[in-house]
Amino acid sequence: MKPRVPVGVIGLGRMGQIYSRHLAQTIAEARLVFVSDVLEDRARALASELGVESWSTDYRELLASPAVKAVFVTSPTSTHREVVVAAAEAGKAIFCEKPIALTLEDTDQMLAAVDKAGVIFQVGFMRRYDAGYQAAKRHIEAGTIGKPVTFKSVGRDPFCPDLNYARPDVSGGLILDMAIHDFDLARWLMADEVKRVYAEGGTLAFPQLNTVGDIDNAVINLLFERGALGNVEVSRNAMYGYDIRTEILGTEGGLNIGYYQQTPLLILTRHGICHDMVPYIIERFGAAYQAQAKDFVERVMRDQPPAVTGADARAALVIGLAATRSFKEARPVDLAEYR
Amino acid sequence: MKPRVPVGVIGLGRMGQIYSRHLAQTIAEARLVFVSDVLEDRARALASELGVESWSTDYRELLASPAVKAVFVTSPTSTHREVVVAAAEAGKAIFCEKPIALTLEDTDQMLAAVDKAGVIFQVGFMRRYDAGYQAAKRHIEAGTIGKPVTFKSVGRDPFCPDLNYARPDVSGGLILDMAIHDFDLARWLMADEVKRVYAEGGTLAFPQLNTVGDIDNAVINLLFERGALGNVEVSRNAMYGYDIRTEILGTEGGLNIGYYQQTPLLILTRHGICHDMVPYIIERFGAAYQAQAKDFVERVMRDQPPAVTGADARAALVIGLAATRSFKEARPVDLAEYR
Amino acid sequence: MKPRVPVGVIGLGRMGQIYSRHLAQTIAEARLVFVSDVLEDRARALASELGVESWSTDYRELLASPAVKAVFVTSPTSTHREVVVAAAEAGKAIFCEKPIALTLEDTDQMLAAVDKAGVIFQVGFMRRYDAGYQAAKRHIEAGTIGKPVTFKSVGRDPFCPDLNYARPDVSGGLILDMAIHDFDLARWLMADEVKRVYAEGGTLAFPQLNTVGDIDNAVINLLFERGALGNVEVSRNAMYGYDIRTEILGTEGGLNIGYYQQTPLLILTRHGICHDMVPYIIERFGAAYQAQAKDFVERVMRDQPPAVTGADARAALVIGLAATRSFKEARPVDLAEYR
Amino acid sequence: MKPRVPVGVIGLGRMGQIYSRHLAQTIAEARLVFVSDVLEDRARALASELGVESWSTDYRELLASPAVKAVFVTSPTSTHREVVVAAAEAGKAIFCEKPIALTLEDTDQMLAAVDKAGVIFQVGFMRRYDAGYQAAKRHIEAGTIGKPVTFKSVGRDPFCPDLNYARPDVSGGLILDMAIHDFDLARWLMADEVKRVYAEGGTLAFPQLNTVGDIDNAVINLLFERGALGNVEVSRNAMYGYDIRTEILGTEGGLNIGYYQQTPLLILTRHGICHDMVPYIIERFGAAYQAQAKDFVERVMRDQPPAVTGADARAALVIGLAATRSFKEARPVDLAEYR
Repeated sequence: MKPRVPVGVIGLGRMGQIYSRHLAQTIAEARLVFVSDVLEDRARALASELGVESWSTDYRELLASPAVKAVFVTSPTSTHREVVVAAAEAGKAIFCEKPIALTLEDTDQMLAAVDKAGVIFQVGFMRRYDAGYQAAKRHIEAGTIGKPVTFKSVGRDPFCPDLNYARPDVSGGLILDMAIHDFDLARWLMADEVKRVYAEGGTLAFPQLNTVGDIDNAVINLLFERGALGNVEVSRNAMYGYDIRTEILGTEGGLNIGYYQQTPLLILTRHGICHDMVPYIIERFGAAYQAQAKDFVERVMRDQPPAVTGADARAALVIGLAATRSFKEARPVDLAEYR
Repeated sequence: MKPRVPVGVIGLGRMGQIYSRHLAQTIAEARLVFVSDVLEDRARALASELGVESWSTDYRELLASPAVKAVFVTSPTSTHREVVVAAAEAGKAIFCEKPIALTLEDTDQMLAAVDKAGVIFQVGFMRRYDAGYQAAKRHIEAGTIGKPVTFKSVGRDPFCPDLNYARPDVSGGLILDMAIHDFDLARWLMADEVKRVYAEGGTLAFPQLNTVGDIDNAVINLLFERGALGNVEVSRNAMYGYDIRTEILGTEGGLNIGYYQQTPLLILTRHGICHDMVPYIIERFGAAYQAQAKDFVERVMRDQPPAVTGADARAALVIGLAATRSFKEARPVDLAEYR
Repeated sequence: MKPRVPVGVIGLGRMGQIYSRHLAQTIAEARLVFVSDVLEDRARALASELGVESWSTDYRELLASPAVKAVFVTSPTSTHREVVVAAAEAGKAIFCEKPIALTLEDTDQMLAAVDKAGVIFQVGFMRRYDAGYQAAKRHIEAGTIGKPVTFKSVGRDPFCPDLNYARPDVSGGLILDMAIHDFDLARWLMADEVKRVYAEGGTLAFPQLNTVGDIDNAVINLLFERGALGNVEVSRNAMYGYDIRTEILGTEGGLNIGYYQQTPLLILTRHGICHDMVPYIIERFGAAYQAQAKDFVERVMRDQPPAVTGADARAALVIGLAATRSFKEARPVDLAEYR
Repeated sequence: MKPRVPVGVIGLGRMGQIYSRHLAQTIAEARLVFVSDVLEDRARALASELGVESWSTDYRELLASPAVKAVFVTSPTSTHREVVVAAAEAGKAIFCEKPIALTLEDTDQMLAAVDKAGVIFQVGFMRRYDAGYQAAKRHIEAGTIGKPVTFKSVGRDPFCPDLNYARPDVSGGLILDMAIHDFDLARWLMADEVKRVYAEGGTLAFPQLNTVGDIDNAVINLLFERGALGNVEVSRNAMYGYDIRTEILGTEGGLNIGYYQQTPLLILTRHGICHDMVPYIIERFGAAYQAQAKDFVERVMRDQPPAVTGADARAALVIGLAATRSFKEARPVDLAEYR
């Protein structure tokens, strides 16, 4: 067997379990050696199931282990600053699930710690690892569509989140929680920075979100530095499924990324021609999550720079903060307000 | 043969010719009896080809003819006010191609004249007659998607218009020229009024448009009176074809209207799986133009109110004016500014 | 007005009415001057509605009229021989709806009469006028898919026909009635002749067809003279709609012709992603019927040879007869049996 | 960690490597403990890469190991009889890749040995594990399409196989090699047995296949015992990609299984609207291979009967042998000839 990067996973919620399984079972370059979660049962059970040598309810034990070379930080966003700073100080390579933080203050502390420690720090914008988005990026760079002039993106979830999660102090609110992926794609695919945003939003489907101060739908106009335009729509009420689509219009053509049909079966009856829909995130981006984890581990192994940097995460956060402010204040917000 | 409504067509440019052919050849309820155009050759040739009894270079001769019961006004937008007011005073039923005017002043004079004369006045928003948009309207009214919460629309032309036409004093500029259709659909499908707009735009593909003060791309956020959201994107550089799509997201589902493939042929080679694209407006909406003309003629015959009123035209114009102002002044514009 | 070809229509059933309307209303090159049908009410009503000068219950009156230059024969198949022979003897240009006859004897009498009279004779295989099939033909001739090696075709009707019509002595039975279109496409698109057929069939959905000796489903293997392969499937029980598709596989690629979705509306709900289906033949091939009638009239006007000849009709009939015999005798049938 | 089934893999060609990786890395219920291949380098390298304890160039060593409870037989088809009989005598649970053999004699010896030993024996018809085919099976059983009346299947490979492999004594020839999957689907989805077949075939794209006695295209008509119809088309020259589709038509509707687009990216340019194609078998059925291996291992663990039996493999082989005979003798072949 080839040498493998010994990896630890901090935080074993939904994403932590997904990464743990990939690291333990499908990524030949990694060896999952340590998992931690504040819930003892969860840590013990996953370690047992996956044959992980060590587990703990205290992530600091994981960071203290010399056996661990790289960590996946999948604990709640509110803990990211503390964990990432500690991981940097411990000299670990760090993969941090999105969003890295809900404030610029936290973000800048993390980036400073990472910078000081000189460790690899990558952020979990997994859409960049999707075959469709990757092919789109290649086509843009190859000039297939000429100069990109308009970026459109739709991100719709099929249900209302738990109200404890939807609280803006936990999730950042709809725009930060969901559109952060689209803001990252906007910067990456357009190879440009956003200059100004304007958002409209509302609580239109799930009035219970009002009780925690969140909304369920938003449309956000983007103006890029070089003059290109954009619009991002996010929604929590796509009751038909998980709907993620992006369009780039250029001077010579266009690229549409995304799909609806999950199972390759068309049903033809008197009631119409029907097929199923992508149900949720893992069905749509499971392969991208796996590719992302594998790529990060390989970068650690080869001591290469990360594919998605802390600066990328910070830039997407700034767009999200500006869009949230735009919605609240009903005015266009120039991103220069955040510099 | 059943009785037919005797109809005249004023202005024999592209749209005038299309309506003339439908009225002369495919609409059993109409008889095309008079055509007029300032270009004598154009009027004479079309009258000869279609077997129309009378033609003139002066639309007032057409309006003076007692043989004409209804008129289609397809002359340049800048002439609409004068022609429509005269037609109303002549007691004709009036179908006016969109946009009825580029200013509220002109619009209000026309509506006043129509109102005073008590004639039928319908405006040419032909998308309402498309089978897809009609089915969408029925589904919304039937509750298929619950309460509509987001309206999205894309309108992309496959080429840069003639610079003489693109001049904002002729076409109204990109937003008024193209998005007026989307603004009408927004009001009709959402069964709500727009309260506020915010537009970003730019000249990104055809720098020559700068010489006449027009742009080629815009994204426009909408906020509806009852809180629903919207976004309209228009572009002049869809080099791949004529791309018209609308999406309505509701609390229980969604509706997507539009299509790409024109000819039912899929070509499978080493270079990929390919098909053709809708080339332009007549291939996409030819049947809708025909249905619209037929419906108007039937309404005249039965003395019924118009399907699309002058008030509808005015409301769409106000959205377009506000969006244009928003783009120019880089601020959200409340439609109350126009009341 | 340009000169127009004066046309008569014989037989005013469904197809006769369709052609009559096109000839009277949408084909500028034609003038419908005479209609005939054995049902007096039907002939009188259509003449009145369309403003046709003359009508009769006796097609011989129509043929005797010197005002009629070309005729559309849309009477029942069983009358085709008599009518076409008489029309040829009357020196009329003849368009005959498919199938021209149910026996080779009748066919050969018709072709002999046409040949003797030297009149234009075209047969109604309207699929050749569909935009998809036309584009496919162009791609094959341009070499897009290399050498065609396999022809596949599906023709499915959405209901059981009237039992009076389904009788094999009236319709020719399922294979002759429905697959004759596919056999014509096979010869035309492959530019080759069929050498051998083998058919399986059965009454699987509508047992009532057994009472008149017809079946409702068949699959027919084809071997072409130059070695290419084929399969045609026909069915009467596509309860979801009218399903017409053809595939050509070549040495360098493939062509798939056909489509399912009629209205450009996608409906997205918890129950899946659904759209409507092509309901029936006119929705699918209405434009092809119109293009076919127009092309025939233009050929008459220009004295050009027909696009689809009597020999084409005879060749498709032979394939149908052989396939029917193959089904009945459960053996491959070589088309040489019919020479 | 849960208990795992210790598994060996015999034959490390393409399929053997795929199963080995799944068993070693992604199937939590299995532990890959032994691999064998006649090529020493191949066996040693894969054992090293995957951390497999034991490897050998002699499959009998693998079968002799008490550590091995179940074996995957992925050696060349010509060796299946010998290996499976030996594995059965060694008391191992057996998964055998398709086709189990090229003759009924070999097949019957294998089934007798398995029967005598009382071991689990499953055959690799992985399409049954595809999400699309599984959903189709459920819909048929739920009555969504009424009674199935027609089975259509297309299987097209994107290249000419190596001539050493294409030899009919190695691969069984085109029909046995490729259509065996379709024959299995036909029996499974229609829940019926095939009664009669008729095949046409030819060497139309790759004349080099003539030198080894193989062909590259075939169409095969099926008649089922209860009267239903079918057609299977197989080809080696789908130069555009790997094209696997099945249609079931029933008395109340239809099911179409299969898809073309691999990457969720649509490319829109002046040259048309294009997307990529499924390139080959692993991109299309990788998840089905994994699900199949997992299901087999779970059945071994729970001592359950196999999902696809030796009788299933035998029945598909008989259809393939009959279709091959039909092609060679140009006559319908009744499957009773093989009883």
